[in-house]
Amino acid sequence: MRAFMDKDFLLDTGTARELFHGSAEGLPLIDYHCHISPREIYEDRRFEDLTQVWLGGRNPDGSYFGDHYKWRLMRAAGIGEDYVTGDRPPYERFLKFTEALQKAPGNPMLHWCNLELRQFFGFDKPLTPATAEEAWRVCCEKLRNDPGLSVRGIIKKAKVAMIGTTDDPADSLEWHDRLAADPGFKTKVYPSFRPDKAINIQKEGFSEYMAKLAESAQTARLESLDDVKDALRARLDFFASRGCRASDHALEYVPFRPAADSEVDAIFRRAMKGEKISAEEAEKYQTALLLFLGREYSRLRIVMQLHYSCYRNANARMFRLLGPDTGYDMIAQTSCGARIACLLSALDESGECPKTILYSLNGVDNAMLVSLAGCFQDGLIPGKIQLGSAWWFMDTKRGMEDQLMCLAEGGLLGNFVGMLTDSRSFLSYARHDYFRRILCGLIGRWVENGELPCDTAALDSLVRDICYYNAVDYFDLEA
Amino acid sequence: MRAFMDKDFLLDTGTARELFHGSAEGLPLIDYHCHISPREIYEDRRFEDLTQVWLGGRNPDGSYFGDHYKWRLMRAAGIGEDYVTGDRPPYERFLKFTEALQKAPGNPMLHWCNLELRQFFGFDKPLTPATAEEAWRVCCEKLRNDPGLSVRGIIKKAKVAMIGTTDDPADSLEWHDRLAADPGFKTKVYPSFRPDKAINIQKEGFSEYMAKLAESAQTARLESLDDVKDALRARLDFFASRGCRASDHALEYVPFRPAADSEVDAIFRRAMKGEKISAEEAEKYQTALLLFLGREYSRLRIVMQLHYSCYRNANARMFRLLGPDTGYDMIAQTSCGARIACLLSALDESGECPKTILYSLNGVDNAMLVSLAGCFQDGLIPGKIQLGSAWWFMDTKRGMEDQLMCLAEGGLLGNFVGMLTDSRSFLSYARHDYFRRILCGLIGRWVENGELPCDTAALDSLVRDICYYNAVDYFDLEA
Amino acid sequence: MRAFMDKDFLLDTGTARELFHGSAEGLPLIDYHCHISPREIYEDRRFEDLTQVWLGGRNPDGSYFGDHYKWRLMRAAGIGEDYVTGDRPPYERFLKFTEALQKAPGNPMLHWCNLELRQFFGFDKPLTPATAEEAWRVCCEKLRNDPGLSVRGIIKKAKVAMIGTTDDPADSLEWHDRLAADPGFKTKVYPSFRPDKAINIQKEGFSEYMAKLAESAQTARLESLDDVKDALRARLDFFASRGCRASDHALEYVPFRPAADSEVDAIFRRAMKGEKISAEEAEKYQTALLLFLGREYSRLRIVMQLHYSCYRNANARMFRLLGPDTGYDMIAQTSCGARIACLLSALDESGECPKTILYSLNGVDNAMLVSLAGCFQDGLIPGKIQLGSAWWFMDTKRGMEDQLMCLAEGGLLGNFVGMLTDSRSFLSYARHDYFRRILCGLIGRWVENGELPCDTAALDSLVRDICYYNAVDYFDLEA
Repeated sequence: MRAFMDKDFLLDTGTARELFHGSAEGLPLIDYHCHISPREIYEDRRFEDLTQVWLGGRNPDGSYFGDHYKWRLMRAAGIGEDYVTGDRPPYERFLKFTEALQKAPGNPMLHWCNLELRQFFGFDKPLTPATAEEAWRVCCEKLRNDPGLSVRGIIKKAKVAMIGTTDDPADSLEWHDRLAADPGFKTKVYPSFRPDKAINIQKEGFSEYMAKLAESAQTARLESLDDVKDALRARLDFFASRGCRASDHALEYVPFRPAADSEVDAIFRRAMKGEKISAEEAEKYQTALLLFLGREYSRLRIVMQLHYSCYRNANARMFRLLGPDTGYDMIAQTSCGARIACLLSALDESGECPKTILYSLNGVDNAMLVSLAGCFQDGLIPGKIQLGSAWWFMDTKRGMEDQLMCLAEGGLLGNFVGMLTDSRSFLSYARHDYFRRILCGLIGRWVENGELPCDTAALDSLVRDICYYNAVDYFDLEA
Repeated sequence: MRAFMDKDFLLDTGTARELFHGSAEGLPLIDYHCHISPREIYEDRRFEDLTQVWLGGRNPDGSYFGDHYKWRLMRAAGIGEDYVTGDRPPYERFLKFTEALQKAPGNPMLHWCNLELRQFFGFDKPLTPATAEEAWRVCCEKLRNDPGLSVRGIIKKAKVAMIGTTDDPADSLEWHDRLAADPGFKTKVYPSFRPDKAINIQKEGFSEYMAKLAESAQTARLESLDDVKDALRARLDFFASRGCRASDHALEYVPFRPAADSEVDAIFRRAMKGEKISAEEAEKYQTALLLFLGREYSRLRIVMQLHYSCYRNANARMFRLLGPDTGYDMIAQTSCGARIACLLSALDESGECPKTILYSLNGVDNAMLVSLAGCFQDGLIPGKIQLGSAWWFMDTKRGMEDQLMCLAEGGLLGNFVGMLTDSRSFLSYARHDYFRRILCGLIGRWVENGELPCDTAALDSLVRDICYYNAVDYFDLEA
Repeated sequence: MRAFMDKDFLLDTGTARELFHGSAEGLPLIDYHCHISPREIYEDRRFEDLTQVWLGGRNPDGSYFGDHYKWRLMRAAGIGEDYVTGDRPPYERFLKFTEALQKAPGNPMLHWCNLELRQFFGFDKPLTPATAEEAWRVCCEKLRNDPGLSVRGIIKKAKVAMIGTTDDPADSLEWHDRLAADPGFKTKVYPSFRPDKAINIQKEGFSEYMAKLAESAQTARLESLDDVKDALRARLDFFASRGCRASDHALEYVPFRPAADSEVDAIFRRAMKGEKISAEEAEKYQTALLLFLGREYSRLRIVMQLHYSCYRNANARMFRLLGPDTGYDMIAQTSCGARIACLLSALDESGECPKTILYSLNGVDNAMLVSLAGCFQDGLIPGKIQLGSAWWFMDTKRGMEDQLMCLAEGGLLGNFVGMLTDSRSFLSYARHDYFRRILCGLIGRWVENGELPCDTAALDSLVRDICYYNAVDYFDLEA
């Protein structure tokens, strides 16, 4: 029997252990997609206690911040909202969380939390209600005083070479600029372009957002489709000048309903007047913008990330109470594979299909997406179209193994750009460690079963590429 | 090499063996959802032979009883209907069945049958055509004479603490009453409320059924939607007074098409006149009833079970010949996840979402359902929304493992209410044993791989809860 | 650690090794569905080099031949089209392919290529860029001179008892006739009936094809639906007279939209005039033909193969450049299970449901298809409705294991007709070896875990049946 999460955690063969400790473990990491705050990096924020880091709380504006993965776990355990997102004393909330964790064998949260305690706090007892008090004492002391546990300390400790934040096109990127100007901070922090608000024509607040976008682009009111395109192009150029390597689109499903520019323009004008837009019209506008932006991404060598198959705010009552991103989203069932193909095919027609990473929240899409990706590999950029790392509800040991195996079976694992955290928490870099163990575990099993040649140099390259160097190349970074 | 199905069957680690033999094996069981006859329990029925128990035959009214799992296996083996459901001599039918079983490695039937022989008959040779005669002799003798093999004997031997039968709202529950009044029988036998016939407005016989429902509710003819609601409410109160803990709905897919009560009332009145109801209208009526009943279940703390994604009677010719439930159903491909979410959200709006167990016959829905369940956990009842145990065609070793892992990955395995048989056969309690072995096997592997702390007391609790105590709590029973 | 792909490759238990080497390995094979050329068999073609066999090139008519699996791998590796399908020198193309292969751990191509080198060329070093030159030298020499590496030599070496080619109804079957008349060649080469062009009423070239079909059936112009049926019946009878055992239909999804013959006749006449046919009308015509042909297949004991869930030519630009079947197809997301059931049910109504093999390119359909198959097993032909072997993008180790397990869990593995190559390459017989190893590996694990009785004779039969004898029976061949 192996000890719980020891140094050889998930490394069940000698080959896996050699690959992890010899090739993967010491590498820097590229976290090309996350949701952390560049301001908190610049200001080198410190945290008061584990509850603030892990469970968060309420912002001054009444919105909530924190880890909705953990909130869901607590609610499922029958723990009341006053502990989950509410005002109970921090240690009580933490203790309740450990009670939920006790019921969660097989949940990645169990591994993530314990990895974070080990990696950043040197606390290596399993986190349970029985060890909660000691963990609290040890970790809170370090959070307040240990130089390795400020935001920059955490980033340094985790050897993060590049961070791709997620930013609205209208964002000033002020904090990115300040970080770039700070000679004492080596990690590259680049913005990612996330134009969801410009695309969600059917959502409330669209015309207000357009005013904000116009302002950021220093243009007059956006009155036509061309105005929107001009503003987005200007912002994208600005983002690119600040090192932007990737864009990101969050979609329930990927639409493809091409229409004449004149028709889309009319739809846009009606939306700006506050008129109701039908689902079909929204799809036409969205398709036009996705095509336009795809070509712009291609021009600027910016990676297009498509995250889809998420049905958001499923619980209407809790959405009203807590707002979005508070743990009430679920896996959607879409069948938009052919539409994604049409989108990429349309872009490819003129040689303007950008580098693309596809993520579905529904794991049953994995094999389909790999087969789709294979149709748009152009022989110029290795792994140009990628199946993204297992996302959100799929970001589990089994989900990650399935993503890796689907990619391996239907494409080239050796080209994979690897892990990202997609996280709001600075401690989540531990998930790169988790990923690297799972990757080395899988490759180790192949080798020891005689399914892959035991070629030490080739295996070392393979692991290093997937953990670090492929992302360096793909995102045009320097190693 | 392990012997075939010995006492450590499926227990591939020391931890698994300790958990199963030390924590799980001796526990009573709650079979909260099945299709056995309360009358046969009351009358303590005995069976003539293994064929009657396993393959069944024809009822006096011409309908068929028996195990359609086994019938399908025989038909797939090329065995004629005269052996499957027909009039061939019992031993010949049994022998043919063992021939089919010989072709069925990897089929749960192989394990179920052999577990039943071991657990109830003490017959521990593998069942094959070569051992068929001996098995027949040994088992038939016991079926006729062994006190442990009457219906009550079987229930006692399996330590069944509670049985949830499946009953039409119009049922008198006469046999439940008689059982409750019998001081010599300790197992609780509670009815479950299955109002499918009241919901299937588009099916033949709907208005006749409404007459029957009215009669059972001792009211006049049901003329309006309100009349239907009143009658169902009366019957549900009656069921609750008889210990009903759960309802059950069998649906090809879960509809959600809310409409004004007046519109639904008009649809109902037209259906009662024998007019043709469109699919859309049927969905409106069904949605209204599901919302009404959901609130009633919540009021009475009754669990709502939704079984969906089954396409029934796929073979029209055989349906005409043999009727429903004779082995001609298949997995449906639905995409109704968002609609289930809308239904629960609508109930949750007023705090009236009942405890709910979700079962899809299509295993690809598992992860989606777990993510859905997480959106309606209210922090009051632990594991309020459950992913049901692997159902029917999914009720295999791999299907059960996938259900357990999906639940573990996206929710709290520690809250799971565990196994049910969903069976028409009294010998099926062996499936609880199968489930417990698979559960302990999974947990054992996690522990021995270092993925779960080896905390003996916590593991013991975990296993006991899932095997028994969670169901006790969830269904408001006494341990 | 096991050596890479040694003689016990994928055989991880003693039982697996005994079953493979003792029962499976020496058996002849039935390749009942492939795309090789009967003319090349008759002419006993030789190949110039490995590139010609593996990567192919351009036909005199400008179309491309070769292995699109390998082309996709190369494109994904960032290798330009001039190496993939273009004019670069053969060895350079081969070397580039080995570079792509180096990036492809977990891809079946890695195993297939190395199996082919071992089985046909006796070259047992792992194929990498480092061994490429030696492999090229050794293999090219043998391809040119070794009598075991002409087309007939390969077929003999692989012990191929029967080959089912894929042929258009209008094909003269000239080369089949010549092969049948050749006393020196023992392998049976039978045509399969693939009437896709007669069914695709909505595709360009339909009326031209109808002229060709009429000519082959030696009738006048086809003017009505009845004419089409008569012509197809005549051709099918002709195919049957040449030993045809199976038909094949390639469909994006299986339609079922029955309509009156008169309506379908009108649709056909409009299509023949070059009028535009709606998707709905096309489905009506296709349904009518599938029903007609299904009955004809039943009459002639011909197996109906349905291959579906493939979305073809996803990349419009590359389709224009390279044409169909060049590596730009992907997995479709269909939900046509119920429609397949309706089709078989309609055929079964009159007892005219033929033997049927169902293949979906989307692996998530496997369990559904097994449950569907169970609804149409008629008790007369063992395993009458089959879940086909893992197809194309699913034809991987994990995909094959899933197909085998889904079949085992929901049906009778013992009835499975087993592997086919579906290949355009003569070296692909190595995939039967791959399949047999995976099968024996799976059965071996069951036995050694105590999940299947260790009954040597029964296991030997099981393996022999699945590898060879079931196909002999199912396709009415002689062993």
